[in-house]
Amino acid sequence: MPYPDEAEGFQVDGPSITEFHKRFFKLKPFGDYDVDVKIEACGICGSDVHTISGGWGEQKFPLCVGHEIVGRAIRVGPKVTLIKEGQRVGVGAQSYSCGECKQCKNDNETYCPVQIMDTYGAEWPETGIVSQGGYSSHVRTHEHWVFPIPEALPTAQVAPMLCAGLTVYSPLVRNGAGPGKKVGIVGLGGIGHFGVMFAKALGAETWAISRSRAKEADARKLGADGYIATAEEGWDAPHRCSFDLIINCANSSEGFDLARYLSMMDVHGRWISVGLPEEEGQVIKAQNLISNGVLIGASHLGSRKEMLQMLQLAADKGLKSWVEEIQLGEEGLTQAMERMKKGDVRYRFTLTGYDKVFA
Amino acid sequence: MPYPDEAEGFQVDGPSITEFHKRFFKLKPFGDYDVDVKIEACGICGSDVHTISGGWGEQKFPLCVGHEIVGRAIRVGPKVTLIKEGQRVGVGAQSYSCGECKQCKNDNETYCPVQIMDTYGAEWPETGIVSQGGYSSHVRTHEHWVFPIPEALPTAQVAPMLCAGLTVYSPLVRNGAGPGKKVGIVGLGGIGHFGVMFAKALGAETWAISRSRAKEADARKLGADGYIATAEEGWDAPHRCSFDLIINCANSSEGFDLARYLSMMDVHGRWISVGLPEEEGQVIKAQNLISNGVLIGASHLGSRKEMLQMLQLAADKGLKSWVEEIQLGEEGLTQAMERMKKGDVRYRFTLTGYDKVFA
Repeated sequence: MPYPDEAEGFQVDGPSITEFHKRFFKLKPFGDYDVDVKIEACGICGSDVHTISGGWGEQKFPLCVGHEIVGRAIRVGPKVTLIKEGQRVGVGAQSYSCGECKQCKNDNETYCPVQIMDTYGAEWPETGIVSQGGYSSHVRTHEHWVFPIPEALPTAQVAPMLCAGLTVYSPLVRNGAGPGKKVGIVGLGGIGHFGVMFAKALGAETWAISRSRAKEADARKLGADGYIATAEEGWDAPHRCSFDLIINCANSSEGFDLARYLSMMDVHGRWISVGLPEEEGQVIKAQNLISNGVLIGASHLGSRKEMLQMLQLAADKGLKSWVEEIQLGEEGLTQAMERMKKGDVRYRFTLTGYDKVFA
Repeated sequence: MPYPDEAEGFQVDGPSITEFHKRFFKLKPFGDYDVDVKIEACGICGSDVHTISGGWGEQKFPLCVGHEIVGRAIRVGPKVTLIKEGQRVGVGAQSYSCGECKQCKNDNETYCPVQIMDTYGAEWPETGIVSQGGYSSHVRTHEHWVFPIPEALPTAQVAPMLCAGLTVYSPLVRNGAGPGKKVGIVGLGGIGHFGVMFAKALGAETWAISRSRAKEADARKLGADGYIATAEEGWDAPHRCSFDLIINCANSSEGFDLARYLSMMDVHGRWISVGLPEEEGQVIKAQNLISNGVLIGASHLGSRKEMLQMLQLAADKGLKSWVEEIQLGEEGLTQAMERMKKGDVRYRFTLTGYDKVFA
């Protein structure tokens, strides 16, 4: 760490995904439960692009994004028990919750109604300091939100699991994906590719659902038992009333005929969205839900417990994210962001080469 | 029965709720599993009004509505085992399903994807005969859809349980209403008044949710532990993140700020609609669901098993529907329909005096 309470990283000063500026910025004051992480890799998440470009609303600029962070714990606070200095660790999209409420005590800390701090863009109370993400040299994070990484998982590959992976792993396990269940994953992007991988690893009959057949070979390699192309006529009919769970990972709701998807759900099956499209939502009438009593929901990240389970599952089963490595820097970031916008990645970028950039 | 395959009843010939014509009409051919029921009472359901006035789409006129039927089994088919001749029985809103599919075999017969026949307005295959409801002298119904009524339940009071009651009882039990759970019932009408009664009887902490305080005294008498008036400022705030289940029994979605209701749900709480408003649906964005991972669904009637459990619960706990009796006939029907349209009933009409009308 260049100075005790500073990190160096790539910030944007406004809603442009092509203008990154390398500079120093302040970290929050070091707390008793905090861990300083020297970053070695960071996945590029769709949220990073959305956040910078403003699709989700006002942001606090200047801002350094990035919340799929892997690195080394180089300093731990005096009350830290979950992390050891020197350990390889990860940090995901959330970095704080109250820790005291019913939700926090029940492994629902990502739904804490009292206080949620995102890894970047959230203001630490009473400091005026805005949290900064992993396109940078270091992060300072409460131990609850720092996760030991199993040996077997390579740094660049595990990074995207920390947000994209967990985002789909949590709703899979919370909604019963496993042996004897038929699970669909809509949208084969960064999150969806983990969806297929994890649904299969959990033992479910796994179907990838995409517009065309372009990604069928990939889906099969990821473990899909079946593939549905929604550009084809009658795609829904053979599956009527058969899916126990569909996770919607699509990042656009344009032209989406929800009723046809829902017709594939078994009675009381669950349709869970994890993508957050920028467009207007779906009009939902009770009439669309009533013929099979389907439940529609959304899911937000996952608990620490689920994070650790997911990482262990990946290690035990030898699951490998499909990752393209990008050298951290203005050039690499600009290229990666532009390709993200176009969906030109199979299926995730990880920024690496941090030692070449930071002293 | 005037003739072996005919009944006499009050039909409408088009979408007017004030022109009922007393006449004879054909019943389906008597099958081995059929039960002929001589009707003694029939509840008036919101569906009857919706169906006649066309709010749910095209209807097959002439039509005799009514699907909260209580009467005597006067003839049973040679293969009937569930019902005995002479027994007091009920018939609800559905009168047939395939009986063979996965759903039918798993107590989801009201979600059968193969064949569902409504008690009125559905055409019996290969007969050209349209099913006719309980504003009439008799119905002929497959035994699976005929339910013995426990002694303790008076005929006029039990009638509305057969549709309105079951409609809310099923989602209550399917979604875990019971001790330790906080359950809300939105809309204190025919269905909602059963919702409050049953949620309380099942042991849940029960809240009635209505626009004004006009129905608070009633709700308390029905068993509500608490009452929320959504016309009052800040109505949702004290309940943030606390309801395990809310059953939406409202029959209108106009001016409905769904997001505020959903903010009252605990993490992964369930919002289940049983009303079917005629208006357009709600626009739902994943963003509205994500902060507490709430699930939105709808429910359709309930299984035979649930019907029998509900009737037994009502008998055991001495639950009494709030019923206003109306003499069956053109005059009574017209008055009742007009009052239904205005919501001027607390909380259900039951047509009685059948012996005065039919020979």
